[in-house]
Amino acid sequence: MIFEPPYIAVVFTSTRSSVDDGYGDISDHMVDLVNEVDGFLGMDSVRGSDGRGITVGYFRDDDALKAWRENVEHRTAMQLGRDKWYDEYSLHVTRVERSYTWSRES
Amino acid sequence: MIFEPPYIAVVFTSTRSSVDDGYGDISDHMVDLVNEVDGFLGMDSVRGSDGRGITVGYFRDDDALKAWRENVEHRTAMQLGRDKWYDEYSLHVTRVERSYTWSRES
Repeated sequence: MIFEPPYIAVVFTSTRSSVDDGYGDISDHMVDLVNEVDGFLGMDSVRGSDGRGITVGYFRDDDALKAWRENVEHRTAMQLGRDKWYDEYSLHVTRVERSYTWSRES
Repeated sequence: MIFEPPYIAVVFTSTRSSVDDGYGDISDHMVDLVNEVDGFLGMDSVRGSDGRGITVGYFRDDDALKAWRENVEHRTAMQLGRDKWYDEYSLHVTRVERSYTWSRES
């Protein structure tokens, strides 16, 4: 999915630990929650069979990202992520300058 | 993986078609080729069992990205991608403003 630049893309790369313990439910709940953030545009998310995942969240502007970053339930989930669900992660906060999309003619 | 900002992150999201026909070999070759580009920093790449994938390539600056975009073998591979290997893709060219990494103490 693409939008009209400029906007923010947050790239979250992670490796899941072997601990499940509520991960799926909280993860689903985070998707519901972020969709309620004013200025959240959408997300792309993939996880491979080896536990490596990349999620890209798109936000209209810094205020939208700040609202999500400071969301109390999200902060709790991030702490649980460090306590249990991830072995490592990296986060890139980026400004989208250009975007393109292509799809096969059906 | 993270680097010292500012740098460029190119986010490529795609859906593979059902056509294989050399995809793996060319894909591996593209990884070798991009590693030869002056100013290429690294990449993260994940594909899910449903065929959805996200690859993020990190480049030092616009010149490095331009060198990769204009690489003749890469251009041929991109055309083959549209002809055969992908049903759809999107590309975001972004400027990384902040990056963080965390890993569990072992």
